[in-house]
Amino acid sequence: MNGNLILGGGGMIGQKLARRIIAQDLFPGQELTLFDRHFPPNGVEARQVTGDVSDPETARQLAAERPDVIFHLAAIVSGQAEADFDLGWDVNMMAMWHLLNALKAEHEVSGGTYRPRLVFTSSIAVFGGPFPDKIGDEFLSAPQTSYGAQKAACELMVTDFSRKGFIDGLSLRLPTICVRPGKANAAASSFFSGIIREPLNNKEAILPVSDSVRHWHASPRAAAGFLTHAAQLDTDLVKGRRALNLPGFSCTVAEQIEALRRAAGQKAVDLIRHEPDETIMGIVDGWPRDFAPERAIALGFEAEKDFDEIIAVYIEDDLTP
Amino acid sequence: MNGNLILGGGGMIGQKLARRIIAQDLFPGQELTLFDRHFPPNGVEARQVTGDVSDPETARQLAAERPDVIFHLAAIVSGQAEADFDLGWDVNMMAMWHLLNALKAEHEVSGGTYRPRLVFTSSIAVFGGPFPDKIGDEFLSAPQTSYGAQKAACELMVTDFSRKGFIDGLSLRLPTICVRPGKANAAASSFFSGIIREPLNNKEAILPVSDSVRHWHASPRAAAGFLTHAAQLDTDLVKGRRALNLPGFSCTVAEQIEALRRAAGQKAVDLIRHEPDETIMGIVDGWPRDFAPERAIALGFEAEKDFDEIIAVYIEDDLTP
Repeated sequence: MNGNLILGGGGMIGQKLARRIIAQDLFPGQELTLFDRHFPPNGVEARQVTGDVSDPETARQLAAERPDVIFHLAAIVSGQAEADFDLGWDVNMMAMWHLLNALKAEHEVSGGTYRPRLVFTSSIAVFGGPFPDKIGDEFLSAPQTSYGAQKAACELMVTDFSRKGFIDGLSLRLPTICVRPGKANAAASSFFSGIIREPLNNKEAILPVSDSVRHWHASPRAAAGFLTHAAQLDTDLVKGRRALNLPGFSCTVAEQIEALRRAAGQKAVDLIRHEPDETIMGIVDGWPRDFAPERAIALGFEAEKDFDEIIAVYIEDDLTP
Repeated sequence: MNGNLILGGGGMIGQKLARRIIAQDLFPGQELTLFDRHFPPNGVEARQVTGDVSDPETARQLAAERPDVIFHLAAIVSGQAEADFDLGWDVNMMAMWHLLNALKAEHEVSGGTYRPRLVFTSSIAVFGGPFPDKIGDEFLSAPQTSYGAQKAACELMVTDFSRKGFIDGLSLRLPTICVRPGKANAAASSFFSGIIREPLNNKEAILPVSDSVRHWHASPRAAAGFLTHAAQLDTDLVKGRRALNLPGFSCTVAEQIEALRRAAGQKAVDLIRHEPDETIMGIVDGWPRDFAPERAIALGFEAEKDFDEIIAVYIEDDLTP
């Protein structure tokens, strides 16, 4: 009972996760620590520690507290990892390497009794085309971005350190999280949220790709649910395959826009301006579109069943009236 | 025209590769350098340098010579990587990380003109069960050994550093190489060669698994051929999927033994003693058995068509009369 840790606890999903853990009293009596480079103003009642997750000494300090559950969400987003190669590999892969080795050292010092649950947010960016119509649970990981390669390399480490019993880890290949509240970020996927969020806030949104682009979505609420579910899952059930394709909803941008029309009318749709961006089109073109995530569904992971529900979650959880 | 480099040039395949490059005058007028921790006595007419490939400074020195083609064969074998976790990750993954970063630095110093071909020996150990009857080119990499995880992580790096144009790399998922000349090594797969090699040399051999075990083989000669073929391949043809399942021949241990009987008679077969080893059985049980390596075959990679041919290659290339 050493408490729990969210790396990347200052980010959007980290904050959602922290609030969910507290609201559901998921770890009764245990201290929750959020770690990040910086935190937005927030009313989350948890210890908030700032630092650099890619620093090996920081990893050792975090591991020395022997958290029972570690949620590792800290990352350089896809667009930035593509633009700054060294930074992406350093934060998205080497930080995991340092953390796993620090946890292994604690495991050994403890005489093998310390073996934390590690829940790592991987991504569907571990996949690269050409794709089948639906990506099954045995499809190869051939990423076409640095972000995807870094996430895939971390998955391999999480699985091997787990197989050896140093940790008990799971890698969750999150769908694109949509509708993200707040401002656009540097992720190439940012527009998938922007074209819904901005019009719902009476702002103009830019659509940089064709509306025939199909993609794979789940809400921030579903993401937080994936993470808490993974924290409590019996990992024997995954039979050594510790990287999971998670459920989501597949639709085209045109279908997203139709759902927006149903939720907020033509006035909202008229706020979307089509402004093609070759760079973003190129990145998104290499992304997966649809999945058959049978293993994760059998393991009890749940997401929204249509895009109307995804919009409803945003309106309920994040839209300020 | 800066010459070429074989990392792991003192090993069995490294030596075969060096002899093939020299015999075929594959890189006319270019100096060949072999690098390894140590070298067996050998008559290979190439520069032979000893050192530790996992040392970042060594990686920088090797990269500073700007070899045109780098064959990266240096590795801790599967059994040892399983027994010594830290050493395995250090040599099998971190050495690649240091090398790639050193090559990237040279690429940048050169103003982008230096972009070496890197041919990396990965392994079918990147796959873990359960398997389909034949593993296709789009089957997931879910290794069940540290060795396999390390090789798979390197593949991701080789591909991403190549995608960015810092190097031009290929990862070759070698079948189990059989019949290995010389002594048994610490690889769990060592017996696949031992049960053929020892009897052909009038020595007793230990078979630690059931003769119903099916596995995927190619000869050392085929391995050297894969490597030289990869060094000269037009990498545009792989369309960004730079890790290749190579051709081989699938057979059971019983079928290996039948081929031995055809080559050397019952007297040879009688030298095989069945002595089950639970550890080796456990490791081998998680290994792939058969492949449909369509991409590599289309790209012109070639291996033996039956096990008789594999034995014949050993007799021709390595058996001392």
